[in-house]
Amino acid sequence: MHILITGAAGMVGRKLIERLAGDQSLNGQPIDKLTLFDVVAATAPQNINTTITTADLSDDGVAQTLIAERPDVIFHLAGVVSGEAETDFDKGYRVNLDGMRNLLEAIRHVGDGYKPKVIYTSSIAVFGAPFPHSIPDDFHLTPLTSYGAQKVIGETLLADYTRRGFLQGVGIRLPGITVRPGKPNKAASGFYSAIIREPLAGQEAILPVSEDVVNTHASPRAAAGFLVHAASLDPEKLGPRINLTMPGVCCTIGEQIEALRRVAGERVVSRIRREPDPFIMGIVAGWSTRFDATRARALGFTAEDTFDDIIRIHIADDLGGNFVR
Amino acid sequence: MHILITGAAGMVGRKLIERLAGDQSLNGQPIDKLTLFDVVAATAPQNINTTITTADLSDDGVAQTLIAERPDVIFHLAGVVSGEAETDFDKGYRVNLDGMRNLLEAIRHVGDGYKPKVIYTSSIAVFGAPFPHSIPDDFHLTPLTSYGAQKVIGETLLADYTRRGFLQGVGIRLPGITVRPGKPNKAASGFYSAIIREPLAGQEAILPVSEDVVNTHASPRAAAGFLVHAASLDPEKLGPRINLTMPGVCCTIGEQIEALRRVAGERVVSRIRREPDPFIMGIVAGWSTRFDATRARALGFTAEDTFDDIIRIHIADDLGGNFVR
Repeated sequence: MHILITGAAGMVGRKLIERLAGDQSLNGQPIDKLTLFDVVAATAPQNINTTITTADLSDDGVAQTLIAERPDVIFHLAGVVSGEAETDFDKGYRVNLDGMRNLLEAIRHVGDGYKPKVIYTSSIAVFGAPFPHSIPDDFHLTPLTSYGAQKVIGETLLADYTRRGFLQGVGIRLPGITVRPGKPNKAASGFYSAIIREPLAGQEAILPVSEDVVNTHASPRAAAGFLVHAASLDPEKLGPRINLTMPGVCCTIGEQIEALRRVAGERVVSRIRREPDPFIMGIVAGWSTRFDATRARALGFTAEDTFDDIIRIHIADDLGGNFVR
Repeated sequence: MHILITGAAGMVGRKLIERLAGDQSLNGQPIDKLTLFDVVAATAPQNINTTITTADLSDDGVAQTLIAERPDVIFHLAGVVSGEAETDFDKGYRVNLDGMRNLLEAIRHVGDGYKPKVIYTSSIAVFGAPFPHSIPDDFHLTPLTSYGAQKVIGETLLADYTRRGFLQGVGIRLPGITVRPGKPNKAASGFYSAIIREPLAGQEAILPVSEDVVNTHASPRAAAGFLVHAASLDPEKLGPRINLTMPGVCCTIGEQIEALRRVAGERVVSRIRREPDPFIMGIVAGWSTRFDATRARALGFTAEDTFDDIIRIHIADDLGGNFVR
C-alpha cells in the first residue's frame, strides 16, 4: 500500500507518521511506500520506504505529479492555519481552496478506475457562534473566519467528489488538539496546551482566561487515531454525510488544572500564573465549546475519556515518561 | 442607482426586471441605470436606461469589466441549473463556482471604499436527505447534487466576503418557483408547474407522481419580491448569517389540484392525466419538502399564503387575466 500525506511536516502529520511507522500497516495491508509532502521537508520514518517532496499544492502541476503515482490512501492535512488565513486572504484561499481543488481534480483526471481514499482534516471552525449548549451533528455551517469558510468549502467539494464516485472521502473535524508538543506558539488558543506543557517542563505558563472557560480536547495521539480509523471506514456504513465532528474530552480550564494536579502534583500546578487578557478572553468567547459527535462515536472514533489521560499521553509520547516535579 | 443583474435572461431575471421597471426605484432611490448580463441577450425594459451584455462570467476579465462601472446593487442570478451541473461536471463548477468567485474577486479588487450589495440566488438544493419533518433554519448543508454543492460554496464565499467587509451579501434559498411560465421543460420538477399551466392553457398535463407528494412553492412574483426585499435589508439586523431559506406555500399535489379546481373549475382540472412514472417518483422522494423559514419571515420576506393565490398570480402576470375554461 502506498500512502500520501500532505502537510506531513506539521504536528498532526508527524504524529500520524509515527503511528503508521509503528503499525507498519493500514487496514491490514503492509505499507510499501510513504510519500511525505509539505512546503518544508518532512522527516522520514526509519522503517518505511519514503519519498519526501517539498512543493505547494496550489502551484500548477504539483498535484498531478503527486497523484501520478496513484497512492491508495491520501491524508490531506496541508493547509494554511486559522490566523494566517485571516491575515493573508489571498494565501488562505490559494492554499486551502485551490490546493484542495487541485488535489481532487488531479485524482478525478486519472480516471481508469482509480479511486483512492482521501482523508481530510477539517475543523470545528466550520461552526460559528451563537451556538446551542452542545453542537449537534446536524448543526449548520456558519463559519466566522476565512479558515472556517475554506474548511466548509473543502468538506463540500470532498463530499461531492465522493458522491460522484471519483474518490472515497472522509472529512474529520478536529477538536482542540491538546497537549501540543514543542514551543509555545502565537495562536490565541495556545494557552490550552501551554498551561499543561510548560509547567511539566519546569516553566511558568500564563493563563489569560478564567477557569470556567470550556473547550473540547483530544490528544495528538487521538488525532492520529482518528485519521487511521477514518481510512478504515466502510463507505456503505458512512453514507453520503462523510464529514464528521470528532469526539473529545469536554472540560473547563479549572478541570484541566485539577487533572494536572492529580497527574503531576501541586508544585507543577503552582507554575500556572493567572494573568487575564481581555483581548484573548474576547476571542475565546466566540469559540465553540461542546459537541455531540454522536455519529463519529457510533462509527467507532474514540478520544480520551478524561483530561488526566490527555496529560499522561503527553508525558508518555512527548516527554519520554518524565516531567519536572 | 446602478443595478447589475447577472442571469438576466432567465425566468427569475425577467420577473425581477419587470418588477424594477414597475417600481422605477430600489430602496427609495431612482434607478438610473440597469446592466443586464447573461450568456444570451436579455430584454431591456422600455423605461430604464439599460446596457445589455452577453458573456460568460467564468471567462477571464469579464467580471472585472462588469464591476469597473461600480454597480450599487448586484443581483447575481447567473448559473448552470441542477440537471446540467450534474451531467456536465466541469461546466457546473466553472460557471457556478469560478464565475461566482470571479465576481466576488472583481468586487474585492476595486477597493477604494466600493462595497456593493450582492444578492445571490441560492437554492434549497443545499439541503440533502434524510430530512426532519420540517427543515429548521440551522439545519446542516449536505447537498446531494453538484448544483447543491456549488450553491453551498457560493453561500460560504458570499458570507466570508461580507464578513471581511468587501461587500454586503445576502443569499436567498429559493423554494420551488411555481407556476413557471412558458413551455414545459425537461426538469424532473417540471410537473409542479405543468399541472397548473397546461390545463389553464387548454392543454393536457401529465402528473407522474402521487397526490400526497409535498412541496414548498412561491410564485415568480414572490421570487422577484424576495430579491428586492433582500436588497433593502439592514446588515446590522441581518447579522453574520446572511444566507436565508425563503418562505413559501407548503402543500401536497392533491392540494394544488384542489386549488386549481377552486380558481379555474372542474373542466380545467380534468385536463390533468395521472401517469405514474417510477423514475420521477424516485427522484422526487429524495427532495426536501417543508421549511421553517423562521428567520426570513421575521426579516420581512413574504410569499403567498395559499396555492390559490399562486395560481391567480400566474393568470394575472402570465396569461393576461384569461385562461381556457
